[in-house]
Amino acid sequence: MEDTHTLADDLYDIGCVKFGQFKLKSGLVSPIYIDLRLLVSHPVVLRRVAGAMAAKIAGDGQELPIQFDRLAAIPYAGLPIGVAVGLETGKPLIYPRKEVKDYGTAKLIEGEFRAGEVALLVDDLITKGTSKIESLKPLTDAGLLVKDVLVLIDREQGGQAELSTFGVTLHSVLTLSEILADLVRSNKLTGSQRDDVLAWIRSN
Amino acid sequence: MEDTHTLADDLYDIGCVKFGQFKLKSGLVSPIYIDLRLLVSHPVVLRRVAGAMAAKIAGDGQELPIQFDRLAAIPYAGLPIGVAVGLETGKPLIYPRKEVKDYGTAKLIEGEFRAGEVALLVDDLITKGTSKIESLKPLTDAGLLVKDVLVLIDREQGGQAELSTFGVTLHSVLTLSEILADLVRSNKLTGSQRDDVLAWIRSN
Repeated sequence: MEDTHTLADDLYDIGCVKFGQFKLKSGLVSPIYIDLRLLVSHPVVLRRVAGAMAAKIAGDGQELPIQFDRLAAIPYAGLPIGVAVGLETGKPLIYPRKEVKDYGTAKLIEGEFRAGEVALLVDDLITKGTSKIESLKPLTDAGLLVKDVLVLIDREQGGQAELSTFGVTLHSVLTLSEILADLVRSNKLTGSQRDDVLAWIRSN
Repeated sequence: MEDTHTLADDLYDIGCVKFGQFKLKSGLVSPIYIDLRLLVSHPVVLRRVAGAMAAKIAGDGQELPIQFDRLAAIPYAGLPIGVAVGLETGKPLIYPRKEVKDYGTAKLIEGEFRAGEVALLVDDLITKGTSKIESLKPLTDAGLLVKDVLVLIDREQGGQAELSTFGVTLHSVLTLSEILADLVRSNKLTGSQRDDVLAWIRSN
């Protein structure tokens, strides 16, 4: 029986997940680099990602479906994912701008919504959760309620705990451990490489 | 026989095309306002837009198909349209960032490409074409060739002529005249309102 080509395999194959030595903003050198902005150049994988996120939203037959009125996505990396999930689920999308236009109908948030509606924030990944909490601010300032955040990848570096202190539930399609396990299974990573990455992730 | 509900009707119904008095950045007051950023909140219409753009790319049975290697979209309004067209056609997408990150793999353009490839620029609309020409710069600076631009709406205010002076061909799904004609046919606009808008467009 042939092995299934997992979503983790897809992400590795198109270069969204790389192993090596990557210098971070902080000066630290990371053994893994995840760049989900590449997804736009691989529409077949982007569609698979949207399908996996839609399944997660529907509860995957294991959990209750996530309840919300609108999807909200964070530019840039989150916006193409949000658009793809919107097209897949038929759910309306909104997005906060990084900068505000100074003319016309100047808006902090693009798209249609009403105060009091529940927004499901979708994004590419979560690390410690601090920037995710900052991203919630324009939405909650506009009167939206955010109870759930859905990411493609949870790097398992504290994001879930950080969100929960704000009463927000994290959902992820893949955890970093799951990705590493899948890549070891498909011989793209050795067990020892996986252990090195996990050790680094846990201590940073 | 029932009238067809045109794409122009859809855009009007969801508020992407509005008539009234809208103050512009320049101080001028316009009788029409087009905001295609709302499309993300209407995935069914966004999918229809992507289908219409894909048909235009394929030549619609009337023209030769547009030849290109990658789609390129301009954030913000153009990016969701580019993502939808990428998903519809299976063509890879890239996009120039409005600002450049100062860490990690700092990039002017997100997504995968090689110098020498041909990019088809997709965007929401074109007015005079000057900002479209500016948008081409990061792409051509990166070694990409841009021979064609595809927009959803051509406001017919000189964009086509401006692009052609740079050797670039403009393609549009809808011209403003076509939208106005469709809306008059579906009784959303009177003939006299249409004439007022056209007169304003032609003199600005």
